[in-house]
Amino acid sequence: MNGAGEARPLAILCGGGGFPLEVARVARANGRTPFIVGIVGSSDPAIEAFPHVWVHMGQVGKMFGALEERAIAEIAIVGAMTRPEFADLRFDWGALKRAPELGQLFRGGDNRLLAGIAGIFEREGLRVVGAHEIAPQLLAPLGPIGARAASSEAEADARVGAALLSALSPFDAGQGVVVANARVIAIEAAEGTDAMLARVADLRSSRRLRFQGPAGVFVKAPKRDQDLRLDMPAVGPKTIEAASRAQLQGVALAAGRVLVADRREFSRAADEAGLFVLGVAP
Amino acid sequence: MNGAGEARPLAILCGGGGFPLEVARVARANGRTPFIVGIVGSSDPAIEAFPHVWVHMGQVGKMFGALEERAIAEIAIVGAMTRPEFADLRFDWGALKRAPELGQLFRGGDNRLLAGIAGIFEREGLRVVGAHEIAPQLLAPLGPIGARAASSEAEADARVGAALLSALSPFDAGQGVVVANARVIAIEAAEGTDAMLARVADLRSSRRLRFQGPAGVFVKAPKRDQDLRLDMPAVGPKTIEAASRAQLQGVALAAGRVLVADRREFSRAADEAGLFVLGVAP
Repeated sequence: MNGAGEARPLAILCGGGGFPLEVARVARANGRTPFIVGIVGSSDPAIEAFPHVWVHMGQVGKMFGALEERAIAEIAIVGAMTRPEFADLRFDWGALKRAPELGQLFRGGDNRLLAGIAGIFEREGLRVVGAHEIAPQLLAPLGPIGARAASSEAEADARVGAALLSALSPFDAGQGVVVANARVIAIEAAEGTDAMLARVADLRSSRRLRFQGPAGVFVKAPKRDQDLRLDMPAVGPKTIEAASRAQLQGVALAAGRVLVADRREFSRAADEAGLFVLGVAP
Repeated sequence: MNGAGEARPLAILCGGGGFPLEVARVARANGRTPFIVGIVGSSDPAIEAFPHVWVHMGQVGKMFGALEERAIAEIAIVGAMTRPEFADLRFDWGALKRAPELGQLFRGGDNRLLAGIAGIFEREGLRVVGAHEIAPQLLAPLGPIGARAASSEAEADARVGAALLSALSPFDAGQGVVVANARVIAIEAAEGTDAMLARVADLRSSRRLRFQGPAGVFVKAPKRDQDLRLDMPAVGPKTIEAASRAQLQGVALAAGRVLVADRREFSRAADEAGLFVLGVAP
């Protein structure tokens, strides 16, 4: 589509936050031509810096119309999606025609919902790609990120957390856990990572959880069988803020399986808060 | 010790709440002679209705002195124990003499702490018995408790929750989970059951979790390898209140492995709140 005749067009369906735009910029730097599908009420208005279309959740027909017009064959789904309620969706004819079974998607965990959405794209002949494929620079590497090193105790806590998340995988629950001094402190489910870390902060500040000084590791990893194209876990500078309020020692990320948004600011914030960040073998 | 020369004396180390006294009364009805060890700041002052001694946490020597005086060979540990901080314990000489490794107990989960405490009793020649052994009438039976029946969907949610708790067993984390419409909503760890159910109530009332009407099941079960003499999970009328505030459909308990405090009031509260309670095969 551009002068070089090389850059393949790529749609990015954008959830909330600034991360989808970072992915779009990196994808462009990698030689792609992003076309943004913005969701009214969710996506950052800054998407308008790219070629784009706005749709309401459920306007499947309008979205596919825009993609067909541009002969787009690949789509990435990026950013925090608020799990919609069935009653809030604005289905158009294009939605009902394509997915008479839409209502079924809303029974079960997030994986099932996202897999159903991906199925709708795929039946339409689109290839669903992951943010990690179009912007691999954003993945957590193995080893330390930032200046601080993890103690061997903290590394042991990280291993316990990673094993716990692995054991939870079949249940399509959360992607995060906090382990401190070999004790499991908090496990994420529907409340999400921010609320889980806020809970740990509360347990510390109310002294229901009493440690001397910083304690514990927040471990983030996708479910073992998670389709990373659909729901790659992501962290960013706000994760560091939340981990710091929870008085943790650090953060452990499944290397190659967790995206780090705004890496420079993320590292700077971690160093300033005195937190280690460690990419661990998933 | 009593006139019949039959009733074997039995110590009950009492945590908080009224449940230890219910166990003491049932044990007495079963022919035992309870002697209560009350923990200053934790146990209900009503323990004074029984022969008793008050000790501070850590006064191991004073406690063993009282038990020896009465030739007591069995002890049950009953009721909610606040996990103490090492710094808050008032060790006496009897404690230091018996357990030079006390500090080690505070690294790891609750199972490890309780197992260490049981070890101290056992090295002293005492047999540690469970509330379920001295008051088996208090265990959740298999099948419905109260008037309301579970739907087949709710039973399926209960099975998911039980399987999840089983998968979490090796991690010595929580004993409770909430599953709604096949989705894992909340998993208990250090915050405890009450806080977890309050979280679900918040997710519902803030409409971050949106269901039509009551939804979901709170499942409670001990860890697979949990020593039930030391940390048998327990529910009571307050569990029903919390489940009702969380807008659940019901409560599922591992039959024969969860204690039900104040059963009459528990059933009445469940019926009144429209909640089912189901004892499930563990």
